[in-house]
Amino acid sequence: MKWNITLLLGVVTLVCVVAGEALTFQPVDEAADAISASRLPTGYRDWRLISVAREEGELDDIRAVLGNDIAIKAYRDGTRPFPDGAIIARLAWSYDASEENNKAFGRTQSFIAGNPKNGVQFMVKDSVKYASTGGWGYSQFDDGKPLTDQAALQSCFDCHQGFKHHDFVFTRYAP
Amino acid sequence: MKWNITLLLGVVTLVCVVAGEALTFQPVDEAADAISASRLPTGYRDWRLISVAREEGELDDIRAVLGNDIAIKAYRDGTRPFPDGAIIARLAWSYDASEENNKAFGRTQSFIAGNPKNGVQFMVKDSVKYASTGGWGYSQFDDGKPLTDQAALQSCFDCHQGFKHHDFVFTRYAP
Repeated sequence: MKWNITLLLGVVTLVCVVAGEALTFQPVDEAADAISASRLPTGYRDWRLISVAREEGELDDIRAVLGNDIAIKAYRDGTRPFPDGAIIARLAWSYDASEENNKAFGRTQSFIAGNPKNGVQFMVKDSVKYASTGGWGYSQFDDGKPLTDQAALQSCFDCHQGFKHHDFVFTRYAP
Repeated sequence: MKWNITLLLGVVTLVCVVAGEALTFQPVDEAADAISASRLPTGYRDWRLISVAREEGELDDIRAVLGNDIAIKAYRDGTRPFPDGAIIARLAWSYDASEENNKAFGRTQSFIAGNPKNGVQFMVKDSVKYASTGGWGYSQFDDGKPLTDQAALQSCFDCHQGFKHHDFVFTRYAP
């Protein structure tokens, strides 16, 4: 009977460990692998918010910057440079005056996110793979299709060089 | 021996069910309970993004609207009215011109989220508890402290009445 109880406890412990691992496992590299293979990663729209911004001029959009779990943790902990595996996503939409909001507010003041615009961009941190571009891989997807113009992608890094003091990342965390 | 195996299987199954429940359980009512008790709920900053907006005029902010799991599911499924348990959070920050972004872009165009502004607002759906205000409870926290001015809170509902056709919710989901 004692042996049976020991066996039982052993099996239960094993099951708990395996179940716990399976349920808490975060497939952090799945998104990086997808992006590396020129596929829009699934699930990025579920990532947590880093901050928001508005770009005037040619971009003329309103945008949100999201991060995967590694990126969010690094932001909140103040970890710089960002650790390998961090991914930052930039979504953007047309900057639309909202007539229905203005009507409710009783004044002209409201601008909302319209249709997706200027693609979805990603920065993937891999200090070895992307060593030649500051440890970050840059990519963009327009209507789900990867941007393949290497000069355009190089221009991402060129522009982000101005933020070398912040590990090449423009966006700061909005509390 | 056969009895022992049956017992073992029974215990393992029970442990799996309990562990699964415990690990996947979403404490959806915790946030609603906190808000109802005039406490800023923990964890709302981890909720997923619904959309972003810019308000000019007196508000003069840039904002993000986040939803708990029930709200996000309802948005994505197009479920209206929103089911009980849905909570929508509105965060806002000062609308700040970014000199460092403009420098990197080589032109004046960039506005980013500065300090938190205009409080954090919540709409909690409970069709019974908040029946007198369209099924939604409205609240606001300024620097973590609840707004207690009942006239101000009533003005939330007054303004949201203009969106009765959209279950009193201004914000539409940004894809």
